[in-house]
Amino acid sequence: MSTDQASSADQLLASVDAEPGDRVRVHRDEDTLEGRVMPRHGFSDPDVVVLKLDSGYNIGLRVDEGDEVERLETGGEAPEQPPAMPDDVDELPTVALLGTGGTIASFVEYRTGAVHPATSPEELAAAVPEAFEHARLDPEVVFEAFSEDLTPDHWSQLADAVEAAFERGVEGVVVTHGTDTMHYTAMALELAFDELPGPVVLVGAQRSSDRPSSDAATNLTSAVRVAAETDAGEAMVVMHEGMSDETWAIHAAGRARKMHTSRRDAFQSLDHRPLGVVTDDAIEWNVEPREPADRVQRSGSFDADVGLVHSYPGIDADEIRAAARDGLVVAGTGLGHLPSHLAEDVDELTDEGTLVAMASQCLNGRTNMHVYETGRQLVEAGAIEAGDMLPETAYVKLVWALATADDPDEARELFRQPQGREQSPRTGFYYPREEAR
Amino acid sequence: MSTDQASSADQLLASVDAEPGDRVRVHRDEDTLEGRVMPRHGFSDPDVVVLKLDSGYNIGLRVDEGDEVERLETGGEAPEQPPAMPDDVDELPTVALLGTGGTIASFVEYRTGAVHPATSPEELAAAVPEAFEHARLDPEVVFEAFSEDLTPDHWSQLADAVEAAFERGVEGVVVTHGTDTMHYTAMALELAFDELPGPVVLVGAQRSSDRPSSDAATNLTSAVRVAAETDAGEAMVVMHEGMSDETWAIHAAGRARKMHTSRRDAFQSLDHRPLGVVTDDAIEWNVEPREPADRVQRSGSFDADVGLVHSYPGIDADEIRAAARDGLVVAGTGLGHLPSHLAEDVDELTDEGTLVAMASQCLNGRTNMHVYETGRQLVEAGAIEAGDMLPETAYVKLVWALATADDPDEARELFRQPQGREQSPRTGFYYPREEAR
Repeated sequence: MSTDQASSADQLLASVDAEPGDRVRVHRDEDTLEGRVMPRHGFSDPDVVVLKLDSGYNIGLRVDEGDEVERLETGGEAPEQPPAMPDDVDELPTVALLGTGGTIASFVEYRTGAVHPATSPEELAAAVPEAFEHARLDPEVVFEAFSEDLTPDHWSQLADAVEAAFERGVEGVVVTHGTDTMHYTAMALELAFDELPGPVVLVGAQRSSDRPSSDAATNLTSAVRVAAETDAGEAMVVMHEGMSDETWAIHAAGRARKMHTSRRDAFQSLDHRPLGVVTDDAIEWNVEPREPADRVQRSGSFDADVGLVHSYPGIDADEIRAAARDGLVVAGTGLGHLPSHLAEDVDELTDEGTLVAMASQCLNGRTNMHVYETGRQLVEAGAIEAGDMLPETAYVKLVWALATADDPDEARELFRQPQGREQSPRTGFYYPREEAR
Repeated sequence: MSTDQASSADQLLASVDAEPGDRVRVHRDEDTLEGRVMPRHGFSDPDVVVLKLDSGYNIGLRVDEGDEVERLETGGEAPEQPPAMPDDVDELPTVALLGTGGTIASFVEYRTGAVHPATSPEELAAAVPEAFEHARLDPEVVFEAFSEDLTPDHWSQLADAVEAAFERGVEGVVVTHGTDTMHYTAMALELAFDELPGPVVLVGAQRSSDRPSSDAATNLTSAVRVAAETDAGEAMVVMHEGMSDETWAIHAAGRARKMHTSRRDAFQSLDHRPLGVVTDDAIEWNVEPREPADRVQRSGSFDADVGLVHSYPGIDADEIRAAARDGLVVAGTGLGHLPSHLAEDVDELTDEGTLVAMASQCLNGRTNMHVYETGRQLVEAGAIEAGDMLPETAYVKLVWALATADDPDEARELFRQPQGREQSPRTGFYYPREEAR
């Protein structure tokens, strides 16, 4: 029974004399949840009760006024809980764990069946103690948001937090992130640094930690391993590689895209193999990761206003104009096309100073705006080609290029130059990628 | 040497006494093209010279004022040219060949290196005589456009032409189409008919017929075979299945999407196997095609104004509003999300009578707007879920639903009901597709 003052986990459990190992049933409104009480550890949030469900997964419940608890069984064997810090903690690498919200840090609001972000990385640590076996984790909440609510401002905040973490001496950084826009943030963190002394690993979960098929714990553990055990000096995304629990893909920033609404292997490297793969035994690279630098060095900012618009049959000039600000990325059809009648509007926009870049909504392959008249008209109107950059990647890069350059010509040049792995140089005229296969 | 009056193929060739089999070089401005003169046949356009290039492929050149020709060799063996109509033509099924422009019907404008649509299906027939071996082709130009320039009005014109073709007794219809938006048109032709007495096969080419790696001839021949040799009563897309020249995939309307800018296997059935496959020997179905009806029966129209907008970090209310007209499809992130602050705008739009549907830019999987608060807010604001429809498919379907229904409630119902293969019924709550695997 909760008291009439602010609830705490201890108070709730004490109200029925429940100890770790006891089986309890928590009532909230019409709903109930049953499990064994987990022991508390150093990171435990005083207001969170952690239960081990029959599925074997842990769930953290933030105690709420009105919660009621029943003790169903006593004296059960206390569920195994790894120590908050392993004995050899001083020998483990230090990894910053930067929380931004999202499913990996979620707890079920079981009143509605919906999922809310955790309010502290401690809650996350309580749910995924395995991650603490590979590193001395240095947790910090940078912000709390669903990833669909993030903006370029959040990328800057996160870059600040990554910079601060490396400056205080961590060996790697893990960013827990909602999956909806994780690929945008990965590209932003790649662009935000000229030099990185260690890995910056973004990780999310497709299913929240209350679900038997949750990928939260295994993804986070794999991400911590990449951050702690490798010295790659670049930004990456680590997520399940396939449907099994055996391998996790390491995707290059700018190449990954969320390609499924719900599958655990939602993230795919498009047009490229993943950078590498994590197994239980090893971390193997398909491509040699970038050497780490001696220090962390920022590069530019994200303080520019850019739009991203996708072409389709029936798109009109108003839609293009509503998205065009300092810059505009158009995810055109095919090789990089818009309806012909819009070339005039693109011309006006570039005359007004908007930097317009054409990408392709095909997602694979590269733009080539010299094959058809429609493409050539857009080039004549001043549009630049995004090459083989994904539209999402081109968007992040154009925000960065405009915010970082001193003038439009420099912005155009920054956008065109490969900055990381987001763009391959054109190796020939017309369809070079296939001919190289 | 061209004369000073309107050029014709005969005049140009006669100016140097060139006959079929002779090797000629044509000069236009700074450029030249060499090949053997092909014999003319019944479909030949009087203003087009067809040359067999050294690559083995044919190219049709529309004779232009200022063209000059040299005869390099005479008396070569005339290139093999199948007869325009095979001997057994009366025994072959009749297939309408509806031309709409696009690469499959393109000829190189070699002055600029760019590609222009053919101006008649006869030009196409001249370039791809193989297609005439499988059917008595009944050609018609419906319109001439790059597919990036098509609008819902074009879908209606094309549906009219398909209806007229079946009414005059053809056994099947092939639509040659630019690839950029062919998947939109395929869905439109599927929705445009309650009953189809035979196959409607859309086909395009990723490389124009002047290129050694052109897929124009083999794609068209495969499409004609599906139209002539099967009695499927539905709309489909036929394109190369892989990188080889051995198999062509038959994609269901609404499930196909252009997923590569240049590869011949650019079209993929997302989240589904293709309906079937065409090989040199056979046409094999993975899924039983729909039975043909006794007659053709139209269903509704496309006379509605709908927008399609993709969410991204930084999207603002103006962009949503610019795309919202009678209806709006949002390709949201993840399970069907927009930034939370836009739920209010969606609410206002639905109050104003705009039908708003949420799809997912992940392309694979299905929307589920009951997992996260952001999704539930959008449902409360009146948005409907597109389920596992592709954003492009949902867009075509919403245009059709709004144009076809008598009132908004009926439009909503038409949109939600599976009309063809574009949408699978939801089989369970949360992530049913993976759990069924």
